[in-house]
Amino acid sequence: MKQEGILYVVGIGPGNLEHLTQAAKNALESADIIIGYTTYIFLIKDIIMGKKVIQSPMKGETDRCKKALELAHKGEKVAIVSSGDAGIYGMAGIVYEIAQREEMNLKIEVIPGVTAAFAAAAVLGAPIMHDFAVISLSDLMTDWNLIQKRLELAAKADFVICLYNPKSQKRVKQIQIAREILMQFRTLQTPVGIVKNAQRENQEIFLTNLQEMLNYPIDMFTTIIIGNSHTKILNGKIVTPRGYQF
Amino acid sequence: MKQEGILYVVGIGPGNLEHLTQAAKNALESADIIIGYTTYIFLIKDIIMGKKVIQSPMKGETDRCKKALELAHKGEKVAIVSSGDAGIYGMAGIVYEIAQREEMNLKIEVIPGVTAAFAAAAVLGAPIMHDFAVISLSDLMTDWNLIQKRLELAAKADFVICLYNPKSQKRVKQIQIAREILMQFRTLQTPVGIVKNAQRENQEIFLTNLQEMLNYPIDMFTTIIIGNSHTKILNGKIVTPRGYQF
Repeated sequence: MKQEGILYVVGIGPGNLEHLTQAAKNALESADIIIGYTTYIFLIKDIIMGKKVIQSPMKGETDRCKKALELAHKGEKVAIVSSGDAGIYGMAGIVYEIAQREEMNLKIEVIPGVTAAFAAAAVLGAPIMHDFAVISLSDLMTDWNLIQKRLELAAKADFVICLYNPKSQKRVKQIQIAREILMQFRTLQTPVGIVKNAQRENQEIFLTNLQEMLNYPIDMFTTIIIGNSHTKILNGKIVTPRGYQF
Repeated sequence: MKQEGILYVVGIGPGNLEHLTQAAKNALESADIIIGYTTYIFLIKDIIMGKKVIQSPMKGETDRCKKALELAHKGEKVAIVSSGDAGIYGMAGIVYEIAQREEMNLKIEVIPGVTAAFAAAAVLGAPIMHDFAVISLSDLMTDWNLIQKRLELAAKADFVICLYNPKSQKRVKQIQIAREILMQFRTLQTPVGIVKNAQRENQEIFLTNLQEMLNYPIDMFTTIIIGNSHTKILNGKIVTPRGYQF
């Protein structure tokens, strides 16, 4: 009898294994084959020892998904990993898209996790707390005009704004333009939190504001949180009040 | 010598203990006093057995925070719990606000968690995946005009939209108005996922669309995810493509 395969799509959280959920750990432990981007495989190396590992560098996303689906379809227990939450700019979507096109009828289970914005928020204080928008500044797969429009409307709506993929070696202008758009709607003193490697090794935390934010190191491992019009800095923490009277 | 107190502000995730992070579990285990809303205390009862527990019903948020801060200030190890992530409509903000006003200089540590939208997304498929906005429909502490404005701008920006607190026994109109605002910008066929008790006991999942969404049970334990203009239903799952070519 053929074993029933399963594909776990696992969000491993920010990187530090302390922020992995038990469900994510269980899925990784019960899988026989682990597939992922090299950097993420490294982060979970201690809990996948002895397992078959298939790793590939950045931009191999679709190939990794195809491989994971093929193996699970053949009856293997497979886990494909994303950092943060697998359903937030992660692997969950493309897995379902490929499975449908290839007419693969197999069990797929998505395990949620702690996304980078929340990992960053926790070390900054309580910058999110109220309605918020999450925007990736990567225009690799998204039209830059749409990203600009989202920045403008999110700023206008007074959302706390979390920026993913703010800058890479080749993409340096986007964060500058994003800041200019935000300055049309918020004061230069609006608190901004910049966290590199949130909740993993070599974490760096910077509390700044819209005026000064570009003077800090920003790269593809950085998450940026921009306060709304009520956000303030209290005792060295960024706090957005929800509105409680006390 | 006086023991140094600490206040852990812990996000316990959606409720099922499988989705608690190790860091949250560690914080709860190392605390001597656990403070929280009765429903959340019940969810974590198995891991806080034998500890001193202070629980209170809904709307006791500020009193719970004051009590937690006072005890930690006196040198106790205290954990105050929020469902989901403590920094997303949770207790983290008010804790920092009160600590600052009362000039309490104590150690506060926020432990991030899996928020309801991500717990719901994982069982719906991959509905978020791209830029998104999270909006609470509760107008208890937020001006309803601002909430309406956020709904309109988020819809215009083509964000995937996650709605928290969509309806309570007394607040029934808000979700109707929200739907009307969304219909100005999205087709009636836009996929909508409704999840009650996401990733906890008595979970209910409904896949519907903007046209039909109000025909499903919606209450304060429900999270609603509304797709963007690219969101589709594939093999019974809601999927928002990120844009990968495959």
